[in-house]
Amino acid sequence: MFTDHSIYLFIYLFIYFIHNNAMHCAQVVYGEDVAILAGDALLSDSFKHVALNTKGVSPERVLDVIVRLGASVGPKGLAGGQVMDLECEGRGDQSTVTQEDLAWIHTHKTAALLQVAVASGAILGGATPEEVEACEKYALNIGLAFQVADDILDVTQSTEELGKTAGKDVTADKTTYVKLLGLDGARAEAERLTKEAKEALTPFGDRATPLLALADYIIARKN
Amino acid sequence: MFTDHSIYLFIYLFIYFIHNNAMHCAQVVYGEDVAILAGDALLSDSFKHVALNTKGVSPERVLDVIVRLGASVGPKGLAGGQVMDLECEGRGDQSTVTQEDLAWIHTHKTAALLQVAVASGAILGGATPEEVEACEKYALNIGLAFQVADDILDVTQSTEELGKTAGKDVTADKTTYVKLLGLDGARAEAERLTKEAKEALTPFGDRATPLLALADYIIARKN
Repeated sequence: MFTDHSIYLFIYLFIYFIHNNAMHCAQVVYGEDVAILAGDALLSDSFKHVALNTKGVSPERVLDVIVRLGASVGPKGLAGGQVMDLECEGRGDQSTVTQEDLAWIHTHKTAALLQVAVASGAILGGATPEEVEACEKYALNIGLAFQVADDILDVTQSTEELGKTAGKDVTADKTTYVKLLGLDGARAEAERLTKEAKEALTPFGDRATPLLALADYIIARKN
Repeated sequence: MFTDHSIYLFIYLFIYFIHNNAMHCAQVVYGEDVAILAGDALLSDSFKHVALNTKGVSPERVLDVIVRLGASVGPKGLAGGQVMDLECEGRGDQSTVTQEDLAWIHTHKTAALLQVAVASGAILGGATPEEVEACEKYALNIGLAFQVADDILDVTQSTEELGKTAGKDVTADKTTYVKLLGLDGARAEAERLTKEAKEALTPFGDRATPLLALADYIIARKN
């Protein structure tokens, strides 16, 4: 199941992170217009890349991956999650932002990208539909756990340890898991999500060891 | 060759025009952030749409189309053409903008989209590589002819006839085919490009009639 094709998924995720971060850099260096065009070019090139360079896999499976990649950016993916995030940030009264809102945002903004990356690897590696579904459940849960861990680190780590400004969620009065559940509640939620993620991989036995380690890393990390 | 699949190409072009125009509208109505996200969502959804809904065609051909769609937006397509256009517009001395620059801009900004739309229709309809190439030559030439005709209309039509502000290229001191070649020179260039476009379709005989009519329309249109 874990084949050379995983390299494409890293490329895919890399392009996304580059896309988001490059947008901000490019806006500063080249101005808004060119930054938007660069984003469109990178996004389109990633579809071209997958369609052109995925060798040794049936074209049906490559198309399946492209459908999922396309969906992961749209209204039920990254774009939808980001818009909801902006909408919630903009609310004057942050107490109206619920845990359900938060889960929706992070499921679409972060977890959907992990979901499509892991599912694509499974599909290209020849997984059955049931195996793909198990991988997706794993990815959605670690995606949410990643965000809960981020919220915890923001209040427990120093700026130096974190490698980015600590406490900025509090400063910005942003609704986080820590704010909604308290520090202990957020830690319990991260544990619960990680446990669910790992349980989804039970059918794979030892073959899932790298993914299980990744799940543990997500909540154990210090920055 | 001309099958139901052409509907996807219209959808594709439609999405592009919507994308460009919607960006400006969305920026006004929803702000910059949401407009960029909407653009990304539309762009990704168009790849998903082609991968998911192209029925009755071999998956190899669908992947070929996706590779071309992806390339048509990148640095050698729409984004590259737009950036070069901004670069040339920004030059203080417009006399440094050559006909070669102009052809490069419009080949990538406009003609590349027509090229991929026409080539995709041919590929999905079962065309041979030689037939696809002939269609591409046709499309690139009508794409450029379209732009030359636009430059001519800008100076020969009234705002009322044009349905948009006439003479705005002159007001903006923008380099156009009319400025470089004169009105008669630009008309001759449009004729030459249309002739080349139509000659590329000779092998198709009568089957190419709709595309030949489209080529004539492009330079005969009044707005």
